[in-house]
Amino acid sequence: MSQVEIISIGNELLIGKVTNTNASWLADKITRLGGRVRRIVVVADDLGEIASSIREAIARGTRLIITTGGLGPTYDDMTLSGIAGCFGLEMEVNEEALDLIKAKYGSKGWELTPARRKMAVFPRGARPIPNPVGTAPAMKLELKDGVVYALPGVPSEMEAIFDEYVAKEIKERLGRMSFGEARLVLRGVPESSLAPLLDEVRAKNVGVYVKSHPKGVEAGQSLIEVHFTCYSTTEEDANKLASEAASDLAKLVEKKFNVRPSIT
Amino acid sequence: MSQVEIISIGNELLIGKVTNTNASWLADKITRLGGRVRRIVVVADDLGEIASSIREAIARGTRLIITTGGLGPTYDDMTLSGIAGCFGLEMEVNEEALDLIKAKYGSKGWELTPARRKMAVFPRGARPIPNPVGTAPAMKLELKDGVVYALPGVPSEMEAIFDEYVAKEIKERLGRMSFGEARLVLRGVPESSLAPLLDEVRAKNVGVYVKSHPKGVEAGQSLIEVHFTCYSTTEEDANKLASEAASDLAKLVEKKFNVRPSIT
Repeated sequence: MSQVEIISIGNELLIGKVTNTNASWLADKITRLGGRVRRIVVVADDLGEIASSIREAIARGTRLIITTGGLGPTYDDMTLSGIAGCFGLEMEVNEEALDLIKAKYGSKGWELTPARRKMAVFPRGARPIPNPVGTAPAMKLELKDGVVYALPGVPSEMEAIFDEYVAKEIKERLGRMSFGEARLVLRGVPESSLAPLLDEVRAKNVGVYVKSHPKGVEAGQSLIEVHFTCYSTTEEDANKLASEAASDLAKLVEKKFNVRPSIT
Repeated sequence: MSQVEIISIGNELLIGKVTNTNASWLADKITRLGGRVRRIVVVADDLGEIASSIREAIARGTRLIITTGGLGPTYDDMTLSGIAGCFGLEMEVNEEALDLIKAKYGSKGWELTPARRKMAVFPRGARPIPNPVGTAPAMKLELKDGVVYALPGVPSEMEAIFDEYVAKEIKERLGRMSFGEARLVLRGVPESSLAPLLDEVRAKNVGVYVKSHPKGVEAGQSLIEVHFTCYSTTEEDANKLASEAASDLAKLVEKKFNVRPSIT
């Protein structure tokens, strides 16, 4: 079960007010844990949109879904209701979540208002995950053959919960593959001239994904970063396979264009 | 036809190597042109994924789709083939696109290699859009009742093409609505205490979307930005409606918490 989808929930992402750094942060972490992010989907704070985005991920065969956003106390924090709707679950006060919230507010002497209590209303059968930074607990919902994690949208909270609680759990689900990579920086070779060389390197290094990233022009010379990525049984092995492909391309480039690329 | 979807194509986004700034840049522009971005979807450099993401957008009723990425000369630049596959169109050399590419390379005295020629292979019936920054032309495909724009993934190229060619065209399709906004910054009021006040403001300002963004703790006080957004027939009117809602919240906050928010 190495296929993962990230569903980012929040109107602020759809109006371009906020750049989706949560998704790239999570995608990087999941990749390095050996997972493969199949899609990142951004939807509005809307029950139907949340439910349908999860339903579509499952229909694509994804069994590990991570959502961000929409766990707070305000009217438009509706991720948990959307997830409940998707699976036909009742929403109910989760006593464990309520205890976590009471502990946060109780220590400040604040009363448990309806808005605060709302953050403890969970889909039946879901479990809360403590939030070491903020107040709203995250949520884990085990499915028959999969899992949905709902993490907060505030980056510091999302990152802390992922690192402390989620990473280890999903590593077990993701299986034994490890991710490796290598980079090559080329100056003065346009991407269109590089294309046939990439084909040669790919043919020789099956299993290594080779991607060129044009970075524009620097000091009158086109600048390209080529990124080699690979999954293997150990990180060391994956890095080695990626580096070998990088080295193959470096040799071809040097021979054809008399340019020495830098491997990083 | 104000509903828009953004489809970002590129494995680098799914492994978290690159943050999707293209999508937030486009979402901001589209919103300010009066459009509503319903979804942002990130998919891999894969023909099936590209085709299915477009198919799904259309099934959701979206008639204005903008893709980014996958227009270059290398093997994994396959956006145009994916779009062709989605609509059952043949791929063929587009003479207009070929002329644009010849002009770019001809001026440098470079020959038209297969990799360079590849960038002129378009779905039948599509039109190229000149790329004032890079080489690969963008693409516009008119549908019976909609349009697909395929823009490059390099941000400077994507932005230049959107600003020069796409913005004006889609403004006509998006209709007459304009976007407006206002912001309120609150210190020392936790979001859970703010929630009932947001409900009051929403009830009084129907049509204005009110969203609170917790920004963490600053100098021992919780910091929240509240963003008010609205569509109306003129930008002036939309801004006014948003500002009125912001002013309503400011009064409620001052009365209840004795905190004076700053409106920006």
